[in-house]
Amino acid sequence: MSLDLAADVVELTRQLVDFPSESLQEEALADAVEAALRGHAHLELTRVGNTVVARTDLGRPERVVIAGHLDTVPENGNLPSRLEDGVLHGLGSVDMKGGVAVGLKLAASLTQPVRDVTYVFYDAEEIAAIHNGLGKLSVTHPHLLEADFAILMEPSNALVEAGCQGTMRIEVTTTGERAHTARAWMGSNAIHKAAGILDRLNAYQPRKPVIDGLEYHEGLNAVFVSGGVAGNVLPDACTVTVNYRFAPDRSVEEAEAWLRSFFDGYAVTVTDASPGALPGLTRPAAQAFLEAVGGEPAPKFGWTDVSRFSALGVPAVNFGPGDPLLAHKAEEHVRVEEIVRCEQQLVAWLSEEDAG
Amino acid sequence: MSLDLAADVVELTRQLVDFPSESLQEEALADAVEAALRGHAHLELTRVGNTVVARTDLGRPERVVIAGHLDTVPENGNLPSRLEDGVLHGLGSVDMKGGVAVGLKLAASLTQPVRDVTYVFYDAEEIAAIHNGLGKLSVTHPHLLEADFAILMEPSNALVEAGCQGTMRIEVTTTGERAHTARAWMGSNAIHKAAGILDRLNAYQPRKPVIDGLEYHEGLNAVFVSGGVAGNVLPDACTVTVNYRFAPDRSVEEAEAWLRSFFDGYAVTVTDASPGALPGLTRPAAQAFLEAVGGEPAPKFGWTDVSRFSALGVPAVNFGPGDPLLAHKAEEHVRVEEIVRCEQQLVAWLSEEDAG
Repeated sequence: MSLDLAADVVELTRQLVDFPSESLQEEALADAVEAALRGHAHLELTRVGNTVVARTDLGRPERVVIAGHLDTVPENGNLPSRLEDGVLHGLGSVDMKGGVAVGLKLAASLTQPVRDVTYVFYDAEEIAAIHNGLGKLSVTHPHLLEADFAILMEPSNALVEAGCQGTMRIEVTTTGERAHTARAWMGSNAIHKAAGILDRLNAYQPRKPVIDGLEYHEGLNAVFVSGGVAGNVLPDACTVTVNYRFAPDRSVEEAEAWLRSFFDGYAVTVTDASPGALPGLTRPAAQAFLEAVGGEPAPKFGWTDVSRFSALGVPAVNFGPGDPLLAHKAEEHVRVEEIVRCEQQLVAWLSEEDAG
Repeated sequence: MSLDLAADVVELTRQLVDFPSESLQEEALADAVEAALRGHAHLELTRVGNTVVARTDLGRPERVVIAGHLDTVPENGNLPSRLEDGVLHGLGSVDMKGGVAVGLKLAASLTQPVRDVTYVFYDAEEIAAIHNGLGKLSVTHPHLLEADFAILMEPSNALVEAGCQGTMRIEVTTTGERAHTARAWMGSNAIHKAAGILDRLNAYQPRKPVIDGLEYHEGLNAVFVSGGVAGNVLPDACTVTVNYRFAPDRSVEEAEAWLRSFFDGYAVTVTDASPGALPGLTRPAAQAFLEAVGGEPAPKFGWTDVSRFSALGVPAVNFGPGDPLLAHKAEEHVRVEEIVRCEQQLVAWLSEEDAG
């Protein structure tokens, strides 16, 4: 399969949606992205694993990063794509192949942007942080991410979304003692004990702190549960994997301490953590971009790689087509008008006269 | 690996324990059993899958079945075997390689039993009923199981245990709606809903009906739980697999109706069911055996294949070495004296003058 960057941005989004790229299976799509960009003389390409970086090097006074991830969550009966009444349906149409299509179109067509641009198309954003292609790049090739400002094209209804919530995954476990189920009184059932964990999750009330005028909204959810030895054996272990989404006024350390207190009495192991990012709307680079594209900024609930840019000292915002509330849902879909508008706004920003 | 039937019954038990045979992986052990019995002229062998049947055909007025299963539950850090102070430790030492060893010794050594004997060594007793070797044999070769009486050598402390409880496995499921965990209010979490299932299991009070003077003891346990889509997605399904052990005064149909009522409001699917067996202590064949081996009969809590014999109209009891309370536990062990005693009592019964 190959990608046709001469197609318009909507058709290109559709090609991307129909190109399967579940997390850890992005290699074919990364190959296609690399092949499609290779013919463009104004771009310098770097391939790292399944991440493709394309840079202009025009000596502009300012450099920006435009980034998007290639992977999607698992299919949920929502492939192939379907374009109907100006709405594109399908896996990844929102999260985030519309944004990737915009990035690819800009990379191919803007041979003389007024700001130098580093385009980053990376893998494994939808799974544990250890796999994240942008995270790996920030360790192995940090110079490729140096910039004055970064735009992450995560879905944001084509409006600027600022900051992001952190995310932490923990395993909460119970233990018991195996015995034959016909003589259950000889053992103790670890799955039954997990009722207490689920009861706490059901009683959870989310925090909603307001930061820089934006209201965040935390969340605490079991994402996996597993336990069992055999059909006639009392299980001696049960594990509930919990995902905590925390507002950016809480650090990773504070999030962990709060979780350990919330699940007091149970064994808790942290398996994955990524800090949030404060909105940072007061920074000059953020202000300039806000003025260029217009609209009111909103808080970002989902964790996004803006926090990686924040950690590198690069101001960053989320800005991309699609309603983030539809991400990861079977009925994921995007209005094509939003994809087109994002492209136009970024083309205008990168072509304006008074840049830098 | 091969088995040495010339070894004494304790050494033979040890050989069997050290011969791995987890359910569905019994082929090598069935091969070894078949090879060890093949040289004996007084036995007629039939191999069906991983079940080995060995019959005498001496024209005796009475025929009895002596049966045992070859498989074990999964290993739990309890291999290889260890013989210490007259106690044999290891996986299957109780359930039920001691009984299998007794059956193999009787088959090899008793060339002229006073009752014709059908020895049955079968596979897949520890898992879902559909796999059970004795069950398959009763469908494909029912004539091989025709008899006046059957002894199933399940662990019973070398005492006669009568009847058995039935067993049923069901899947109790919850459903929800997927959404990104960062925006949990857009979906609903199926794992959280499973709290209600676990709460009912924790509130369960077992029935203990008395039948023919024997007190049974029911049980209701989650044996598996599973749910989850991805680490950042609200799960849309959760399944708790429950094993119900019911006293033999309840039929399979009554057990199912009770479960559906107990889990009212949840989706319930029956995946596996085997009826119990009433003690049947008033039948003449059971009485004769009781007199021969002595001791007070006790109720059998665990489901055993005596119910298959009951269904075929063959009176049957459990009688074998080992404490059934230790079955499926990591510390499974048996006093070798019990194995020896079982062998001696059955040799005496099959050698007595006034048989028939």
